[in-house]
Amino acid sequence: MTHLREQRAAQDAELERALRRPLVLASASPRRAALLRQVGLPFDVRVSDVAEEADEVGRGPEAVALEHACQKALDVAGELPGRLVLGADTVVVLGDQVLGKPSGPDEARGMLRALSGREHEVISAVAIAIGASDGARLLTEHAEHTRVAFRALSDGEIERYIATGEPPDKAGAYGIQGHGALLVRDIDGCYFNVVGLPLSRTWEMLVELGYDGIGHGASDRDA
Amino acid sequence: MTHLREQRAAQDAELERALRRPLVLASASPRRAALLRQVGLPFDVRVSDVAEEADEVGRGPEAVALEHACQKALDVAGELPGRLVLGADTVVVLGDQVLGKPSGPDEARGMLRALSGREHEVISAVAIAIGASDGARLLTEHAEHTRVAFRALSDGEIERYIATGEPPDKAGAYGIQGHGALLVRDIDGCYFNVVGLPLSRTWEMLVELGYDGIGHGASDRDA
Repeated sequence: MTHLREQRAAQDAELERALRRPLVLASASPRRAALLRQVGLPFDVRVSDVAEEADEVGRGPEAVALEHACQKALDVAGELPGRLVLGADTVVVLGDQVLGKPSGPDEARGMLRALSGREHEVISAVAIAIGASDGARLLTEHAEHTRVAFRALSDGEIERYIATGEPPDKAGAYGIQGHGALLVRDIDGCYFNVVGLPLSRTWEMLVELGYDGIGHGASDRDA
Repeated sequence: MTHLREQRAAQDAELERALRRPLVLASASPRRAALLRQVGLPFDVRVSDVAEEADEVGRGPEAVALEHACQKALDVAGELPGRLVLGADTVVVLGDQVLGKPSGPDEARGMLRALSGREHEVISAVAIAIGASDGARLLTEHAEHTRVAFRALSDGEIERYIATGEPPDKAGAYGIQGHGALLVRDIDGCYFNVVGLPLSRTWEMLVELGYDGIGHGASDRDA
């Protein structure tokens, strides 16, 4: 009992120290980095080189995205004792299909035609882990869903959108934060979740862990 | 009859020529300019120096926003024959209150407290006019509504948000495209409408007029 209490107190102290250091973003996505910069959250980037692996058979897209996000966060946290690490994974779900990044223009064309005039769901999973003295530990995880409705697109619009060069590195072959804004009629949920990270929900997860710093970056500059 | 048909043909030819020239944005908002750049729409900025005037007594916020947008578009179009001019106006509506730009930190604090934990509506009105040989003519107008739900904010969060410097020039005292992203739980509708211009709807208005250029900027670079 006393041992458990001591262990808990040591973990709390470890978390408190980690919260005072910049967050570590375990993602190579320039869009996720831009979102953290937008809200002034100090962070470093450290990308895991472990391949994403999840047993997808018989599991829903949310479960798979959560597993990927947790793997990324834990892999990097294992190398960085004393740091909080944020992992994320975004998938596009149309009916019972999961749309990943298109392999080329043909697949991009097929995805955009399938999305045209219909609603789909974007799921971004977020996981926060800590690099602890006794190994990496998962602290919290969440999957945020946003509904996105596409306009009915003409073949010409799809070809011109492909020519912008945006589809290749994006799940579902579009980026809402670029020319892709013109493809979307409206959304229901968190916009930033569609870009790749649910900012407000991620912020709440950090606050629940004890973080306290809205406008942190700005306050630093003012000081 | 023949005269009317000739007049219509001349107007159509005038519109067709105007559609081949860059749009004129009749707004000083750097956010609206950034949105047009994001989707590669070529444009120039020309701001009207006529003060916004609308009889607000007994009229709803949508009617007032539409009148402001039309005034801006027509004022600038009157000075620029042969050009298409885009006017816009954004208002934040909470219950039966219309929130404009706060006059200082006290008013910003009051607005953010009022918005905290509640839903409000953002209305952006868009008007497109043409500078014609016989004076400015309104071609089309539209008001887009987006529902925005705020998280419940602590007093500390509100003070830190005010310290970021974002509230002063924004209706409702927040900018969703900045640190203000952390204040918003979710939205229902067009995200860009909350930033200040409903991109997808504005695009559709231009296409209905005969515009044809998604990825226009990008195609130009590729050529």
